Amino acid sequence: MSAFTDLWHEISDIGGTAKDGYVRLAWTPPEWELRTWFEAEARYRDLEFEVDGNTTMWATWNPAGATGPAVVTGSHLDSVPHGGAYDGPLGIVSAFLAIELLRARGVTPVRPVRIAAFAEEEGSRFGVACLGSRLMTGTFDPERARALTDAAGVTLAEAMAGYDFDPARLGPVPLTGIAAFVELHVEQGRALTVPVGVGSSIWPHGRWRMDFTGEGNHAGTTLMGDRRDPMLTYAFAVLAANKDARTHGAHATVGRVAVHPNATNAIPSRVTGWLDARAATTAMLDELLAGLGTKIATRAAKDGTTVTITAESTTGEVGFSDRLIDRCVTVLGEKTPVLPTGAGHDAGVLSGFVPTVMLFVRNPTGVSHAPGERADDEDCEAGVEALADVLAELACR
Amino acid sequence: MSAFTDLWHEISDIGGTAKDGYVRLAWTPPEWELRTWFEAEARYRDLEFEVDGNTTMWATWNPAGATGPAVVTGSHLDSVPHGGAYDGPLGIVSAFLAIELLRARGVTPVRPVRIAAFAEEEGSRFGVACLGSRLMTGTFDPERARALTDAAGVTLAEAMAGYDFDPARLGPVPLTGIAAFVELHVEQGRALTVPVGVGSSIWPHGRWRMDFTGEGNHAGTTLMGDRRDPMLTYAFAVLAANKDARTHGAHATVGRVAVHPNATNAIPSRVTGWLDARAATTAMLDELLAGLGTKIATRAAKDGTTVTITAESTTGEVGFSDRLIDRCVTVLGEKTPVLPTGAGHDAGVLSGFVPTVMLFVRNPTGVSHAPGERADDEDCEAGVEALADVLAELACR
Repeated sequence: MSAFTDLWHEISDIGGTAKDGYVRLAWTPPEWELRTWFEAEARYRDLEFEVDGNTTMWATWNPAGATGPAVVTGSHLDSVPHGGAYDGPLGIVSAFLAIELLRARGVTPVRPVRIAAFAEEEGSRFGVACLGSRLMTGTFDPERARALTDAAGVTLAEAMAGYDFDPARLGPVPLTGIAAFVELHVEQGRALTVPVGVGSSIWPHGRWRMDFTGEGNHAGTTLMGDRRDPMLTYAFAVLAANKDARTHGAHATVGRVAVHPNATNAIPSRVTGWLDARAATTAMLDELLAGLGTKIATRAAKDGTTVTITAESTTGEVGFSDRLIDRCVTVLGEKTPVLPTGAGHDAGVLSGFVPTVMLFVRNPTGVSHAPGERADDEDCEAGVEALADVLAELACR
Repeated sequence: MSAFTDLWHEISDIGGTAKDGYVRLAWTPPEWELRTWFEAEARYRDLEFEVDGNTTMWATWNPAGATGPAVVTGSHLDSVPHGGAYDGPLGIVSAFLAIELLRARGVTPVRPVRIAAFAEEEGSRFGVACLGSRLMTGTFDPERARALTDAAGVTLAEAMAGYDFDPARLGPVPLTGIAAFVELHVEQGRALTVPVGVGSSIWPHGRWRMDFTGEGNHAGTTLMGDRRDPMLTYAFAVLAANKDARTHGAHATVGRVAVHPNATNAIPSRVTGWLDARAATTAMLDELLAGLGTKIATRAAKDGTTVTITAESTTGEVGFSDRLIDRCVTVLGEKTPVLPTGAGHDAGVLSGFVPTVMLFVRNPTGVSHAPGERADDEDCEAGVEALADVLAELACR
């Protein structure tokens, strides 16, 4: 077996369900097991291990002669519920192996190379994507973060404290120590026809909570004309979001819903749906949301319900560093594809503060955030080589 | 305060939430508190208390000289989640007070009068409405009942055993001891313009589980044209059910949904919705379901999803005993309204086996299965009087 296959299999059972993908939510037992693995790998490889106040883990290769700000690579270990194996962990495993490769090649960096593993990138437990990198860059309020609650009503502060992390330490971390950030990630579509590509940009995107309120009542006895059923307005919104996204060339999804009281024989009093929307430009995204808001409000008036739409997180268009993109293409070959993505990443958050770029590894199914997410071992090995080449380029001169 | 107000307030805090109605699910602590109250009331009133194998509680007034099959009244103590105070408990409290009234009047019944409190009438915990009365009448398989699971994965057998009830004892109970059954219930609409009415029939009704399957994928990166999103087919089904019910003069509701994995940034792989549908005749209900099934299947084909619709419980049209309806109207006055209902009841199950009738108490809001469910104390007192009059009619001659 290859070095990649070996290391990959060390974590392939953690947080896995028999048939239904991975559940590796932030500050839960499977994520803790991954953290334990990360620390052990760092120490085994003689990398300096530390955990910062946002529970981001760091493993640093700081050989004699290396000085100044570090080249950082890495990704995250948490998953969406019942997600795939690759989204996040591929970037961490590849980072360890890229450093191993550089050492084997006898490369001597002039600046430190660090691996970062950010917390709660998916936002699957507390609702805010890229929370670790947002806190680090000071773009999310630590006080607000501590008060976030998961589906069971556990606050983020309580979840952290459960693993002896001090929630009082959440907050900005100086970024002056970072010369550049490179995130390697499985591709989340089928655009790549070669093993590795370079990321150009991230579509503007966001999450909006849509709260529909009506009047709870008996499903059997309430006349159809007397109803104020928020499920109808919700259903309309789901279909309208899909239709409008298609006509705008954008992406829109309602993948999460909560119903109160969620009983078969009761008209709900309240339905909440979460809209994920993305488009190539901020103007297109704004236009999509504005149009949808008007349509949904009109339907709510017809249904006798009310609707409020609240942005939970929004991210403008992110263009990665042109200089870094050029250097990647030079190192990896002029035919290396350069492609945008519709997915958010910690790299997108960091790119507002430090020179940042991404590498994508081919995904034969195109599936992501689901058990069908895949990358061939050979392509992952090519990803490790590419990451090592890029790190050498950035850390040695 | 009246006797009604006194007794009503003894249970008005049990299972109540601060602002959001009652949660009194079968075999949970609040329902156990209501069971404890029922037993104490029975013993305090010198009624014989017993619990049968289906955990139905019985309180029997069996004075000297009373023989033969009993006249049974009663209802249930469980609620839908975040339901109202009256649906169920009003029939139990009224039964105790009606017996008190008969004793105060010096009425001597020639046959026993019994109060029954059935378990899991709402089906809110294990999904099968009127489960206690279905088991008693042999219309639900005890083996299947034991294996039912609640939302947390607890089986009905485990839930019963948690309160020292023996699940092996579930099953049919001889009905030869029941001469007639009278269920007093809060009205679940606004048809009544006087305090008390007599039930004529229950609309045929049922619950259908609609399982929509698609392909889980990333919400940000999956092209709209590549999606097989079951939430779209679900949303279509919600709107189609509402529209078709309106055109058929029927009632249809989707009040409960489960989504997998239910994450904001993932296209769901699976959505399950529960359809509650009712109509004046079985033929109309069948036609509604058949038409809906065709439309939803057509839409699923368009969405690249699959749908299966499974009947979880269905009940044909129930007409209460004409003879009992006549006797009620004679006793209560010729102007007493006689009205059908769209709601299922234990009385509907029992009416297939023993002469059965219902009394309805006016509901000023018309709301039911929600915190706004109401009945004025004066109307409830009139309900107690009416129930006492009907019991005297049925038990004394």
